[in-house]
Amino acid sequence: MTTNRQFRLARRPQGIVQRSDFDYVAEPLRDPVEGEVLIQVLYVSLDPAMRGWMNASTDSYMPPVAIGEVMRAIAVGRVVASRLAGFAVGDHVSGLLGVQAYAYSDGQRLSKVNPALAPLPLYLGALGMPGLTAYFGLLDVGQPKEGETVVVSGAAGAVGMLVGQIARIKGARVVGIAGGADKCRYLVEELGFDAAIDYKHEDVAAALKRHAPQGVDVYFDNVGGDILDAVLLRLAHGARVVICGAISQYNNMSAVQGPANYLQLLVKRATMKGVMVADYYPRALEAVMAMGGWIRAGQLKTREDVVAGLDTFPETFQKLFTGANNGKLVLQVAG
Amino acid sequence: MTTNRQFRLARRPQGIVQRSDFDYVAEPLRDPVEGEVLIQVLYVSLDPAMRGWMNASTDSYMPPVAIGEVMRAIAVGRVVASRLAGFAVGDHVSGLLGVQAYAYSDGQRLSKVNPALAPLPLYLGALGMPGLTAYFGLLDVGQPKEGETVVVSGAAGAVGMLVGQIARIKGARVVGIAGGADKCRYLVEELGFDAAIDYKHEDVAAALKRHAPQGVDVYFDNVGGDILDAVLLRLAHGARVVICGAISQYNNMSAVQGPANYLQLLVKRATMKGVMVADYYPRALEAVMAMGGWIRAGQLKTREDVVAGLDTFPETFQKLFTGANNGKLVLQVAG
Repeated sequence: MTTNRQFRLARRPQGIVQRSDFDYVAEPLRDPVEGEVLIQVLYVSLDPAMRGWMNASTDSYMPPVAIGEVMRAIAVGRVVASRLAGFAVGDHVSGLLGVQAYAYSDGQRLSKVNPALAPLPLYLGALGMPGLTAYFGLLDVGQPKEGETVVVSGAAGAVGMLVGQIARIKGARVVGIAGGADKCRYLVEELGFDAAIDYKHEDVAAALKRHAPQGVDVYFDNVGGDILDAVLLRLAHGARVVICGAISQYNNMSAVQGPANYLQLLVKRATMKGVMVADYYPRALEAVMAMGGWIRAGQLKTREDVVAGLDTFPETFQKLFTGANNGKLVLQVAG
Repeated sequence: MTTNRQFRLARRPQGIVQRSDFDYVAEPLRDPVEGEVLIQVLYVSLDPAMRGWMNASTDSYMPPVAIGEVMRAIAVGRVVASRLAGFAVGDHVSGLLGVQAYAYSDGQRLSKVNPALAPLPLYLGALGMPGLTAYFGLLDVGQPKEGETVVVSGAAGAVGMLVGQIARIKGARVVGIAGGADKCRYLVEELGFDAAIDYKHEDVAAALKRHAPQGVDVYFDNVGGDILDAVLLRLAHGARVVICGAISQYNNMSAVQGPANYLQLLVKRATMKGVMVADYYPRALEAVMAMGGWIRAGQLKTREDVVAGLDTFPETFQKLFTGANNGKLVLQVAG
């Protein structure tokens, strides 16, 4: 047998994550015990939520990763040894396998995935957690109606690009907010967004006025901070604000910047509500069937940014926060 | 005929309202023209929302009071001359009569009130705008269920004291947040709140943990700022946050302090929604009948803080922001 390699959390990061926040260790592999399966990790999903899991906060929806523990991450892999009924060597699986080359599992929250139906990274994107987040966050929480204007931030990211396309499929006008001319061009020309706002080079408030002259009916927020405040000032009557994340705030050393314009909820009779993807796991099949159908029909495009090399984890993870990633960021651990 | 006295907005207040922000002028009265009614103002309602109407902001639910215009306010009065069908001399009416001794009206948004059924100041409180705000904000937006924990801030104010009592009537546990031991004692001993937190002398976060050990199911927020942030950290799963106002922020010279802990909406699958009383005017009768019934049955207590003298307006208005008022603040203009 070979050796495992693992990123273990060494300390709580202050601000931007550093390589020194982790111990990158080698561990001898053992055979799985009865009721256990050994999985070779192939692709690790890198998600903004992981930054929150590194903090000591007790107010989150999941316990923090303990110091010394393997960094938590969703991943897909292949079963290489099994003493667990229902899982055979060669099966492909998805689950919270962690940032490591091999993982043991008792089968809890482990799902089989089929590489013949879709490339494996897709199970970490449109057919995985980001897909469910986009689908249910938009349709169940945001509830866009035909002809309404939907604005999504982090629009070129894993969740945002799906949100915008689903909104289009449902007949809404879609405005994406992203960083940089290339991403904005991609949203409009490749994904069919009605408009895109480059927050790095445009005045977001002025651009919103131009692109959403009737106001914003649904705002799907992945970023928080100043962009959330700008959109709050442009809400239409009865708007729905879907809080999915706040990537602009995750590396803050001080407190989160709360939305100063939240009283617009009152002025505009608007609702602000969070979407927590775990609540929708029981309905996962509905989303995966819809998304899969749209992908096959060519109505929904996906884009994965696959970076090779487990050892690049700390630096590759940063791409999420600098905006250097194009689409769903995935770490390729093995082929 | 006599002379009118009016508070006209002289300039946009910076921070705390000053007497010098108004011109206190005398105007000769004229006879009403055809289709008009002349009303002697008896009681003027002093409400936190008036502070917002003094600002130039274009993002509010009502146009600002123009410079030179009589300060906008809800009031009750008595018709002293009428050339408007349906309104006779001696009728008592309620409407946006302004901070002045006499008002002309074309009958728009003017309602008759009956002094034989309830004291006139009550039509500015429990049977008026604050009553509708409390009733619909709590029941329609907050939707407390029996046995749930409802927390209300500004709990000894015009709206808050009603919110807490209605929540009790509906079978909820009620915790009020107010400033000072006297107000807190009043909430528990006189109004039957289950607990009260004195934010001026207690650690609100610690007190919430003690008084809402299972978390807060409904939070009715009148104050914003640090107290909103403290309650957000104690929300129960599926909580509803009703945004009614943010009196702690209305005199800010700089930006409003947004709720830094708003991501708890996501963690706790909670909803934040505004209540705008004007939306409920078509259903006013429902609230007034319910509130009137509870008052007659002794289940709902009201408290009006009546200050005599139109000329005291700028100073009396300050009581709302220093917390010096006890219950619904009303300016008595005439007997």
